[in-house]
Amino acid sequence: MNVESFFSKHSKEALKNDPPGEWMPTIPEGCIRLSSGYPAPHLVPVEEIKTAAISLLEEEKDLPLHYLGSPKKKKLNELIRERLALRGIQVSEKELLITSGACQAIDLIARILIDDQTLVAVEAPTYMEALEIFRNYTTHFISIPVDEHGLQTDLLENLLEERKQKGLSLPRFLYTIPTFQNPTGTTMTEERRKHVLELAVKYNFLILEDDAYGELYFKTHATPLKAMDSDGRVLHVGSLSKVVAPGMRIGWTAAAPEFIKAMAWFKKDLDHPFAQATMAAYLERTDMRERLETLRATYQAKCSVLLSALEEYLPKSVFWYVPEGGYFVWLRVAADTSELLAQALEEGVSYVPGKYFFLIQEEGVEYLRLSFSYADEKTIIEGVKRLGRVLREVE
Amino acid sequence: MNVESFFSKHSKEALKNDPPGEWMPTIPEGCIRLSSGYPAPHLVPVEEIKTAAISLLEEEKDLPLHYLGSPKKKKLNELIRERLALRGIQVSEKELLITSGACQAIDLIARILIDDQTLVAVEAPTYMEALEIFRNYTTHFISIPVDEHGLQTDLLENLLEERKQKGLSLPRFLYTIPTFQNPTGTTMTEERRKHVLELAVKYNFLILEDDAYGELYFKTHATPLKAMDSDGRVLHVGSLSKVVAPGMRIGWTAAAPEFIKAMAWFKKDLDHPFAQATMAAYLERTDMRERLETLRATYQAKCSVLLSALEEYLPKSVFWYVPEGGYFVWLRVAADTSELLAQALEEGVSYVPGKYFFLIQEEGVEYLRLSFSYADEKTIIEGVKRLGRVLREVE
Repeated sequence: MNVESFFSKHSKEALKNDPPGEWMPTIPEGCIRLSSGYPAPHLVPVEEIKTAAISLLEEEKDLPLHYLGSPKKKKLNELIRERLALRGIQVSEKELLITSGACQAIDLIARILIDDQTLVAVEAPTYMEALEIFRNYTTHFISIPVDEHGLQTDLLENLLEERKQKGLSLPRFLYTIPTFQNPTGTTMTEERRKHVLELAVKYNFLILEDDAYGELYFKTHATPLKAMDSDGRVLHVGSLSKVVAPGMRIGWTAAAPEFIKAMAWFKKDLDHPFAQATMAAYLERTDMRERLETLRATYQAKCSVLLSALEEYLPKSVFWYVPEGGYFVWLRVAADTSELLAQALEEGVSYVPGKYFFLIQEEGVEYLRLSFSYADEKTIIEGVKRLGRVLREVE
Repeated sequence: MNVESFFSKHSKEALKNDPPGEWMPTIPEGCIRLSSGYPAPHLVPVEEIKTAAISLLEEEKDLPLHYLGSPKKKKLNELIRERLALRGIQVSEKELLITSGACQAIDLIARILIDDQTLVAVEAPTYMEALEIFRNYTTHFISIPVDEHGLQTDLLENLLEERKQKGLSLPRFLYTIPTFQNPTGTTMTEERRKHVLELAVKYNFLILEDDAYGELYFKTHATPLKAMDSDGRVLHVGSLSKVVAPGMRIGWTAAAPEFIKAMAWFKKDLDHPFAQATMAAYLERTDMRERLETLRATYQAKCSVLLSALEEYLPKSVFWYVPEGGYFVWLRVAADTSELLAQALEEGVSYVPGKYFFLIQEEGVEYLRLSFSYADEKTIIEGVKRLGRVLREVE
């Protein structure tokens, strides 16, 4: 039997483009993980989630263990909309879909919007997992550079106008992470936010706003694109992975009801009654304002430690953006970061090579992403020391 | 802004075929639910799942709340393979994918196998949700009748041979629920099982075996197709929804590693560390053999109660198959069951009209599905009395 012969064209194509399992090398035991975009272990609310699960099951018995039945599932929709309202995003129940994290939301949006001839606009660099997802649906992309003020909307405008003049297709949507971008850590200015929304109207495209890090600002809060969107063009994707716990797999999309309805149609994992109800029970008994203050202070301190260590231990030629929130710092070094990774792992420190974040991988050769979220402060310093040794060797 | 204009062709087509939310009418509060394929509330192991969640979080702390890290996730793969081995299915770690219930597994299989020109073979009747899923990918189907001995493989053979002679396309796969089928409750005989596997080789198609009910036999155990499959043609889908709790969303596919790898590639909900680790902790401390004995005895008793009530309260013209396991009884009545549903709901009893289970809905007009799993014995009897009143009115 020839297994390959049974695969759909679509599936053959996707598997050829980017074979699964050939992404990052395995990180050896004991290696300092500056690659991992995980929350700090001590900030994961283990006791509180345990209490939530216990009281949920004591109160509702078998209800959250059936397909339907727990009133807490509906409650979660409500609680997340309350959280969105605090950020200026007003949506009704029919404008919100709970998903298994942001990734499932991005996949469902891709599924309802992308044909194999659809053009998609992405940032350069951008979240690698989103790129992978879009590549499962189309091979047509444009990418627009990000600088320290986020997406360069003037370059986007030039590109769109040029394509329009030439009679080329325009993107169906732009995928952007406007706030504390993954991987650059940079944030789109308010001016550029207004500009990109104007462009969406002018050139008739949608915006997929990935806001996984928006609540983790150090000082100033940026307004989500969705809160500035008067035309229903923004599909806003968020998640509790970075502010509560990724293992609970709770994300969402806030968008026009037609989009939500279509996404729900294709979401064949049904809902996750136990996980969703447990999260609702957790949120009901948590002062998220207080929690977010702790998270912000902790991650800001960890970020400072990382930045100081970079100053102290890295060669002077290395350049980075100073983030104002989120999980990441983006570095440019004078070396091929993919090639260097083996040495770094041997030295006992991991990072993510820049090339994975670019549509055109060559553009990312000299970049790398560090995360200050997961490792503790001492470990971060030791990690940077090790990275410094590796980088000095190739200088 | 014209929302519709942004939808992918595929998505427009799917939404047109079968608009979401227009399936069953809402079942009124207080109505006896003989429609619901849910486990009996008192058989859902609430206390045990609570204990499992507590001990998991006490033992592993934050690990099951991150993306990765809990050893219990790998353990779940192992425990499910042990359970499959008891049923004659021997697979390695790479031949098993944990999914969010059987539905996600079916969707992922559809995704890797179906192009828009792909022919899919289904049973008539069959599980409505699977039909819906396949329709999201293709419009090309053949359906083969089921009788009291399961899929009529001789009719399948005739159809395949006829298509072959005519130079028509052959199916890429057959979707079958060989054991305690949903909705008919019938089971494919061993002879037919052998026959369908031979046909798969002869006409070069795969078999998607949905085995959600296989462990819930009353007396005799049927061998899964996967256990008889020497050629790697069977993709076996299972679930803990019917034997533990659907709200945990734990299902799987056991298949050749190439299929598993491709499915994993498209599964963008990542894994569900908390749910999967909690389930592993539950299984580790549960004697499933003992539990299954209780389930079998209980459902058999509930089924007997339903069957006796049918004898007693339904018009003599009504016909049904006597199931040997599972959750369902399939009835043929002398009326349009879709039209009758409003009256039944008014009378205070729900069922699922037969038409939803057929590719060609007209074939199902006079059928309906009852479930004995959810309601308790007294309620089942009262439900059948009410159904009897409705049916007698139209005789």
